[in-house]
Amino acid sequence: MSDAAQTLEGWYVLHDFRTIDWQAWKQAGAGERAAALDAIQSMLADWNAQEEQREGSTAFYAIVGQKADFVLMHLRETLEELNELENRFNKSPLAAFTKPAYSYVSIVELSNYMSKPGEDPLQNPDIVARLKPALPKARHICFYPMNKRRDGGDNWYMLGMDERRAMMRSHGMIGRQYAGKVKQIISGSVGFDNWEWGVTLFAEDALQFKKLVYEMRFDEVSARYGDFGDFYVGNRLDADKLVQLLQV
Amino acid sequence: MSDAAQTLEGWYVLHDFRTIDWQAWKQAGAGERAAALDAIQSMLADWNAQEEQREGSTAFYAIVGQKADFVLMHLRETLEELNELENRFNKSPLAAFTKPAYSYVSIVELSNYMSKPGEDPLQNPDIVARLKPALPKARHICFYPMNKRRDGGDNWYMLGMDERRAMMRSHGMIGRQYAGKVKQIISGSVGFDNWEWGVTLFAEDALQFKKLVYEMRFDEVSARYGDFGDFYVGNRLDADKLVQLLQV
Amino acid sequence: MSDAAQTLEGWYVLHDFRTIDWQAWKQAGAGERAAALDAIQSMLADWNAQEEQREGSTAFYAIVGQKADFVLMHLRETLEELNELENRFNKSPLAAFTKPAYSYVSIVELSNYMSKPGEDPLQNPDIVARLKPALPKARHICFYPMNKRRDGGDNWYMLGMDERRAMMRSHGMIGRQYAGKVKQIISGSVGFDNWEWGVTLFAEDALQFKKLVYEMRFDEVSARYGDFGDFYVGNRLDADKLVQLLQV
Amino acid sequence: MSDAAQTLEGWYVLHDFRTIDWQAWKQAGAGERAAALDAIQSMLADWNAQEEQREGSTAFYAIVGQKADFVLMHLRETLEELNELENRFNKSPLAAFTKPAYSYVSIVELSNYMSKPGEDPLQNPDIVARLKPALPKARHICFYPMNKRRDGGDNWYMLGMDERRAMMRSHGMIGRQYAGKVKQIISGSVGFDNWEWGVTLFAEDALQFKKLVYEMRFDEVSARYGDFGDFYVGNRLDADKLVQLLQV
Amino acid sequence: MSDAAQTLEGWYVLHDFRTIDWQAWKQAGAGERAAALDAIQSMLADWNAQEEQREGSTAFYAIVGQKADFVLMHLRETLEELNELENRFNKSPLAAFTKPAYSYVSIVELSNYMSKPGEDPLQNPDIVARLKPALPKARHICFYPMNKRRDGGDNWYMLGMDERRAMMRSHGMIGRQYAGKVKQIISGSVGFDNWEWGVTLFAEDALQFKKLVYEMRFDEVSARYGDFGDFYVGNRLDADKLVQLLQV
Repeated sequence: MSDAAQTLEGWYVLHDFRTIDWQAWKQAGAGERAAALDAIQSMLADWNAQEEQREGSTAFYAIVGQKADFVLMHLRETLEELNELENRFNKSPLAAFTKPAYSYVSIVELSNYMSKPGEDPLQNPDIVARLKPALPKARHICFYPMNKRRDGGDNWYMLGMDERRAMMRSHGMIGRQYAGKVKQIISGSVGFDNWEWGVTLFAEDALQFKKLVYEMRFDEVSARYGDFGDFYVGNRLDADKLVQLLQV
Repeated sequence: MSDAAQTLEGWYVLHDFRTIDWQAWKQAGAGERAAALDAIQSMLADWNAQEEQREGSTAFYAIVGQKADFVLMHLRETLEELNELENRFNKSPLAAFTKPAYSYVSIVELSNYMSKPGEDPLQNPDIVARLKPALPKARHICFYPMNKRRDGGDNWYMLGMDERRAMMRSHGMIGRQYAGKVKQIISGSVGFDNWEWGVTLFAEDALQFKKLVYEMRFDEVSARYGDFGDFYVGNRLDADKLVQLLQV
Repeated sequence: MSDAAQTLEGWYVLHDFRTIDWQAWKQAGAGERAAALDAIQSMLADWNAQEEQREGSTAFYAIVGQKADFVLMHLRETLEELNELENRFNKSPLAAFTKPAYSYVSIVELSNYMSKPGEDPLQNPDIVARLKPALPKARHICFYPMNKRRDGGDNWYMLGMDERRAMMRSHGMIGRQYAGKVKQIISGSVGFDNWEWGVTLFAEDALQFKKLVYEMRFDEVSARYGDFGDFYVGNRLDADKLVQLLQV
Repeated sequence: MSDAAQTLEGWYVLHDFRTIDWQAWKQAGAGERAAALDAIQSMLADWNAQEEQREGSTAFYAIVGQKADFVLMHLRETLEELNELENRFNKSPLAAFTKPAYSYVSIVELSNYMSKPGEDPLQNPDIVARLKPALPKARHICFYPMNKRRDGGDNWYMLGMDERRAMMRSHGMIGRQYAGKVKQIISGSVGFDNWEWGVTLFAEDALQFKKLVYEMRFDEVSARYGDFGDFYVGNRLDADKLVQLLQV
Repeated sequence: MSDAAQTLEGWYVLHDFRTIDWQAWKQAGAGERAAALDAIQSMLADWNAQEEQREGSTAFYAIVGQKADFVLMHLRETLEELNELENRFNKSPLAAFTKPAYSYVSIVELSNYMSKPGEDPLQNPDIVARLKPALPKARHICFYPMNKRRDGGDNWYMLGMDERRAMMRSHGMIGRQYAGKVKQIISGSVGFDNWEWGVTLFAEDALQFKKLVYEMRFDEVSARYGDFGDFYVGNRLDADKLVQLLQV
């Protein structure tokens, strides 16, 4: 690959946003609701087991506002496994009470802009752990897709490798200031979905999402070259909170 | 934070716009309608009580035109509380007669462009009251989301801090001319929703919304750097007007 | 107001576009259809009476094509009255057979670009009649919303007052050539709806809409500074034509 | 009209695209389906009779892909007649098994860019026949709406008449190379619908649509000044093919 | 054709993306489901037979994410045949459990940018095989539509033939590096659908889609002149996988 940055890829990612059909849910019988709740809890248990086996990772968050009611973020080795996960959900009894809201297909990606010559990054266990991560159990999630702009004088893909590398380094510096506050998963989606990257952030304090993204917006990489899709923000769901969410 | 303006944040905000399914409402039995009305009035009472306890604030307005029939604007301490508010509404009997129309997630924000060096703004009770306000009971509401533009020669985020501060000061001057006529709540939504800010205006005379927004449009901050989303305008709902609205 | 053009405002305006659910209408019983027709005719009669009392004005037109089946264009003194008009329609039996198609909220506006210094325009009965007009009974209607462009070198709001006044004068000259053929109602919607203005044209000969709008498009105000939304064109409905429209 | 090109107008045009609700159609009883088929055939016969009387013209084509299942393209003297045609369809039994997909309102237009001074074009029977044409019975149809661009340095409406005339002449030359292969109907929609023109092409060989539109795209008029909406392509329906289409 | 690149065309193409209505599918009786499965398998068998007769080719893939559940990509000699294929599906019992998701109409195209003068490409059996191909049975598919940009200084259609040919040659070089890894089918859609080309990629390793499209994005043809629509990625369906997909 000539002038493109080298990238390293890990697990494929499916963000699967769903909206609850509250009216149908309230009209369902208690037995039907219990069966639906059992089925989703059983899926969550299976996905936890896969995570423990290091075969993938799944995060489950409620989404604030009308864009969706929850998101299942799945990381797996292949696109076929992601497809099976969405089909399993679609065939489960809870699906009858939800509607698709948005989805995003990508693959965990590490940019090689900052790699050292002569190093084989896949021999680095830290890098492997970042390519196939166990998703954080943080209180909040933030997801948005993005492009690098190609617009008249602001065309990222017409810049030289050195210029891009320098800007990405400065961009990364801002991210590093938020180490311990915000955990980022960058996933590439060129050829897989409508934007070039998906960004998933995790934090205990949701305000850090705003502070990080806002500060980055003044950085030239975002200011001149970043185009952003819809933003989703949410709160972690666990077994108890799920029961509470679905309690009617 | 290097070149980004410092901001102060207060309560999280959810604007929850809903459309009434008039056909379903008219077909409902009188008892079903009364139960739905009771439930919303009970929620409104609870939210009033929370406002008196300074635990948050909720505004309730009818929206003019087909974009929505009403909006609930909630201010609370956490994203989890906002999520519980929308879920409570969704589980209430009135929800069966409404459809989601639009929502917006943000956080009350004061820009620090005009702060004095050495001052701790959070020691200022006026500032704290603006960050965690009791929403006005004005006759009219206006809401719109907005971005600062990043477009070729008109790129707000590539300007220096001084230039931005000077422009924001001039912008603020216009707003101040409307003191007593229009009350503004600015909320930041970078990382939370699709635009960078939400603007909520309150006024006794709706024409002042037009005069203010139109005058600001000639100011360089808006003229060159403002991009605006959809505008919603409405009339205050109280217990009596709610009964009248839902009377069929 | 510094550099913004002074404007004069009259009645608030609601354009309420509706689509007929023909399938539901055909399946309704004859009695149900008669009741729905009675109710809309009774509303039209009330609105005519209000027009005679100079408390407002309502125009009623069929729309050509699939965008909508008809539009009710209401002019009233307050936003609350507009809200009551849409709610009254929504609660009426005909509403069960229609779906919302589009709406627009604005206020009748006269630009002061051409006013003479020292003149109080509100003492001029012609101006007052234009701010609170009885809508024409012309054979055809045309509606579209529009913005003045703020785009790089073509930024209306960065022009000086004199330049804008000169361009608007030339623009007005074209409109005046169509006097007697096309009647224009300009309504401002900054702060009220998604575009800055609504333009409603009335003519006996619909071709004059095309001639006027096309000729204006070559005028610098439109050519460089005009952005246009969706166009709706229609034919006047009266009591007989309404019966004919709804005859199945 | 100063700098705008003079245009000649003929019949009003309604393109009425519809999608078949196959599920409802399959579930209908045989008698219901036969009645619906009879009604559309009876309408088609009436429209043929009107065409023979030179009171208008109607083309009927199946559309390929999911955008629509068929289009009725109606040419008539007035907007009221177009409205009656769509209402007649909406009230007919086949309408219960279709949904609106897209529509376009325009008027057959001949540009006067190439007219000779002193000539009265309406005395030319060829021109009259082009303004009020009997639509071709060609095997294929192609429809798309378009604008002339007004974008920074590429602003058609800021060009002088001579420049526009020269470019349109070169543009017309390409069209003339396809004489006998592609028949074009240009219809103006400024003031009537969302784009400035509708273009309807007819050909025996659908590949000629691609060759013509692609070749024109390199012509400065299209390359710099053309913006295009959605493209629809289809196959002619006659009585037999209609029966075959609706056979389930 | 003057300055336009000569192109060669083969079979017409319909990409027919569908979403499964899982709720309806689960509620259907076992007999109804078996009949629907039989019908689609019978269609697939017929399409295989046509492929063996070299009368066309059909690919069948599951799509990952909510955009669609599967795609049928049909290549046939005429637009009428494509229309019959979609109608046959629509009339089949499985259609009752699917909804249209997206479709695309185009024609297999080879650009002549790289042809040698004096050569008749249609005498070349390799070229004929590429114009009327049997679609690969690869594990993964990727589809996206695209335009060549016409935007201010980045206007592909204002470039000279030599400049375009040189850029396309460099672009083709990248594609050739992926020979054996990614199979490309380029189809032209000017005059047929909303974008100018459809690109369909096939690969055993889906990651190669990302690597290819990302590397090309740095090439001037894509970087300055490429605009891209939605991306769809999927996994091959065969008889067994179809049964598994539809097993509830």
